[in-house]
Amino acid sequence: QLTALMEPLHAADIADLLEQINTYDRRRLIALYGHEFDGDILSELDESIREEVIGLLTPAVLADAVRELDSDDVVDLLEDLDEPQQEAILGALEEPDRVAVAQALSYPDYSAGRLMQREVVAAPEHWTVGDAIDYLRSHDGLPDQFYHVVLVDPRMHPVGNVTLGKIMRSRRDVKLGDITEEIFKVIPVDQYEGDVAYAFNQYHLISAPVVDENGRLVGQITIDDAMAVLDEEHEEDILRLAGVSDESSLSDTIIEAAKGRATWLFVNLLTAILASFVIENFADAIDQLVALAVLMPIVASMGGNAGTQTMTVAVRSLATRDLTAQNALRVVWREVAVGAINGALFGLIMAGVTAVWFGVPMLAAVIGLAMLFTQVAAALGGIVIPMALDRAKIDPALASGPFVTTVTDVVGFFAFLGLATVVLL
Amino acid sequence: QLTALMEPLHAADIADLLEQINTYDRRRLIALYGHEFDGDILSELDESIREEVIGLLTPAVLADAVRELDSDDVVDLLEDLDEPQQEAILGALEEPDRVAVAQALSYPDYSAGRLMQREVVAAPEHWTVGDAIDYLRSHDGLPDQFYHVVLVDPRMHPVGNVTLGKIMRSRRDVKLGDITEEIFKVIPVDQYEGDVAYAFNQYHLISAPVVDENGRLVGQITIDDAMAVLDEEHEEDILRLAGVSDESSLSDTIIEAAKGRATWLFVNLLTAILASFVIENFADAIDQLVALAVLMPIVASMGGNAGTQTMTVAVRSLATRDLTAQNALRVVWREVAVGAINGALFGLIMAGVTAVWFGVPMLAAVIGLAMLFTQVAAALGGIVIPMALDRAKIDPALASGPFVTTVTDVVGFFAFLGLATVVLL
Ligand SMILES: [Mg+2]
Ligand SMILES: [Mg+2]
Ligand SMILES: [Mg+2]
Ligand SMILES: [Mg+2]
Ligand SMILES: [Mg+2]
Ligand SMILES: [Mg+2]
Ligand SMILES: [Mg+2]
Ligand SMILES: [Mg+2]
Ligand SMILES: [Mg+2]
Ligand SMILES: [Mg+2]
Ligand SMILES: [Mg+2]
Ligand SMILES: [Mg+2]
Ligand SMILES: [Mg+2]
Repeated sequence: QLTALMEPLHAADIADLLEQINTYDRRRLIALYGHEFDGDILSELDESIREEVIGLLTPAVLADAVRELDSDDVVDLLEDLDEPQQEAILGALEEPDRVAVAQALSYPDYSAGRLMQREVVAAPEHWTVGDAIDYLRSHDGLPDQFYHVVLVDPRMHPVGNVTLGKIMRSRRDVKLGDITEEIFKVIPVDQYEGDVAYAFNQYHLISAPVVDENGRLVGQITIDDAMAVLDEEHEEDILRLAGVSDESSLSDTIIEAAKGRATWLFVNLLTAILASFVIENFADAIDQLVALAVLMPIVASMGGNAGTQTMTVAVRSLATRDLTAQNALRVVWREVAVGAINGALFGLIMAGVTAVWFGVPMLAAVIGLAMLFTQVAAALGGIVIPMALDRAKIDPALASGPFVTTVTDVVGFFAFLGLATVVLL
Repeated sequence: QLTALMEPLHAADIADLLEQINTYDRRRLIALYGHEFDGDILSELDESIREEVIGLLTPAVLADAVRELDSDDVVDLLEDLDEPQQEAILGALEEPDRVAVAQALSYPDYSAGRLMQREVVAAPEHWTVGDAIDYLRSHDGLPDQFYHVVLVDPRMHPVGNVTLGKIMRSRRDVKLGDITEEIFKVIPVDQYEGDVAYAFNQYHLISAPVVDENGRLVGQITIDDAMAVLDEEHEEDILRLAGVSDESSLSDTIIEAAKGRATWLFVNLLTAILASFVIENFADAIDQLVALAVLMPIVASMGGNAGTQTMTVAVRSLATRDLTAQNALRVVWREVAVGAINGALFGLIMAGVTAVWFGVPMLAAVIGLAMLFTQVAAALGGIVIPMALDRAKIDPALASGPFVTTVTDVVGFFAFLGLATVVLL
């Protein structure tokens, strides 16, 4: 009955289901379902759960599950596992597959070599459409997925991509070399997977050949895998910007989750203490005018938000490569101008509010000026810090936050309390 | 010379270049380059620049550029333009294309109908591989892009997808109905484009047929366009979480950019003023013990960060559909527990720091407790608010921030200053 319920589900949906139920239910479900476990479910499972599920399968079921996968999916499965589990899976593969997978694992983490599938359809450049069709019809063991035939020269260097659509609509005597694609991206095996995903998205690639350091064809990457990488890169950016470990997942235990947040909270504590030192320097001023304590968080909070806005725009634009050396100066200038405009606007509003609330015109002037000043500093920090980190090859999504927060907090309190001391006391 | 430089560039790269230079250079470049303008460049251009560039082209060049595009790209081009520019482009199309594009524009914004291309290869379900190949060879006007032949019944309802790879490797007498794909997603023409992108990413689709309300085949969506939508959805989430208008782009003018940030800053100002009212209630306490003013921003800041962490995890998990009714309770509980653990940890650290700094043990106890309390509240707000908004069909990325900030600021100041008043004064 259970199997009948699960049958119509896609492997990805079953994997999601396994992720969402608790450990106890997961054990029971796999015990019931586990005599034949679809390898695709393993590929789709989140890494945090995979090891657990693999541990629940018998060696025979695991071997069956893994043997039906494409090489890229086996690699993806293996790379996050412990040594003994890796051995168990490698042992289940047939000799050529084992060699191919071991080879892929020798490429660096997050490289095209890890992402590619070995299975690729290549043809000599002099072949005709008829040759290709005859070859495909007579050949066993073709990849499950292919959208192009890659033309290669005698040294196995790719020289062109022919879409299957073009082959099918051409007569048998047409030469493949005459119907190749205009845009033809070749991916080096050691390219960073994020750059691969960028290329697929930018150039609307469907599949692309991967070559080794000698330019020889070693595999292909298909867009579905590139799309998954793009999604992961986004997850990384959004979590890192919020100060959450990008390794974290909803299936993490409480302790893992708490750890994944603690680093950022600790850095933020240092920043906050630094800001408090600034405040302490103006303790006398606050003692004389408590309104300063009431109003000062507004200045810092507005600065922090303006800084986050600019920083997020910068991080996203760097990720999409829309922010380049070409327009960097113009964008910095624009952000500073935006900070000045909104700083002036909200400074004026807040000055009005303060005048009504506390009835002290000079206090109103002080908070207005402090807000203007803080928001300009926030904008400047929000754009310059991510750009500098990016240039230093540090992920701006990961490291910008602490710096920008420090700038906005320290500048905010200093500007407001300092101005107040000078003007009011 | 310029054209020689631009020639090897992909349309997407030329579009990026046009976005990154300033208006003056853009005008000059197009004036030089503009006697033959590739339609793909227009599709790739950011919407904020498109209108300007279209305005720079002569009607003849524009007509040429648009005529070479697939229907989905023409629709994408038209939907953001002014009426007169729309008319100009529609006028340049041949009759059947014009009808097809006008039809697509009649579907709702952000629907599958807007995203799909009309061009699709369909075959009767009884056809053989040979029939399909003969049809494709003899037929003109096939789509540029297709990866499947869609099998349809006599009423044009799609009944199966056959990959080109399978067709090519099968003998001519094999029936198409015998080599259809296992997973076969049919997309309703009014489905939200974000859900389309989700389905492509979740099920590794390469192309999928689109059907009208009667289940009849009206077009197809290909994964490259779904990937672009996934990317836009991410941009929307990351910008909305930071309080930046998701319509904004690096090419916006200073005024547009300032406007795109002002709404959120205004909401944040109201929140900050609300928090200041809380502080004002404790003005006497601060007057008696200035250390309270020095320390209170730390409590609020740590709460704000913990809240943002949880909120971001929640927004992302809702977007990837990993947070569902299935595991909602468990995730809420986990987040609260994480808040309690980190609240206790950083509360203890801060209590130690305070004890050393101010030498008042009771003040140390107060800040420790206040931090614990605030971080639990932040976690609860950070997870419950996005879930409630999602259930109310409001985008959690857009609206969670103000609520979560209010919770953490108000609770933070209230807990710390309130506890201090009770215990210390
Ligand atoms: Mg999943
Ligand atoms: Mg991987
Ligand atoms: Mg781009
Ligand atoms: Mg794959
Ligand atoms: Mg990565
Ligand atoms: Mg990144
Ligand atoms: Mg662009
Ligand atoms: Mg296109
Ligand atoms: Mg559109
Ligand atoms: Mg398209
Ligand atoms: Mg959208
Ligand atoms: Mg969304
Ligand atoms: Mg999923």
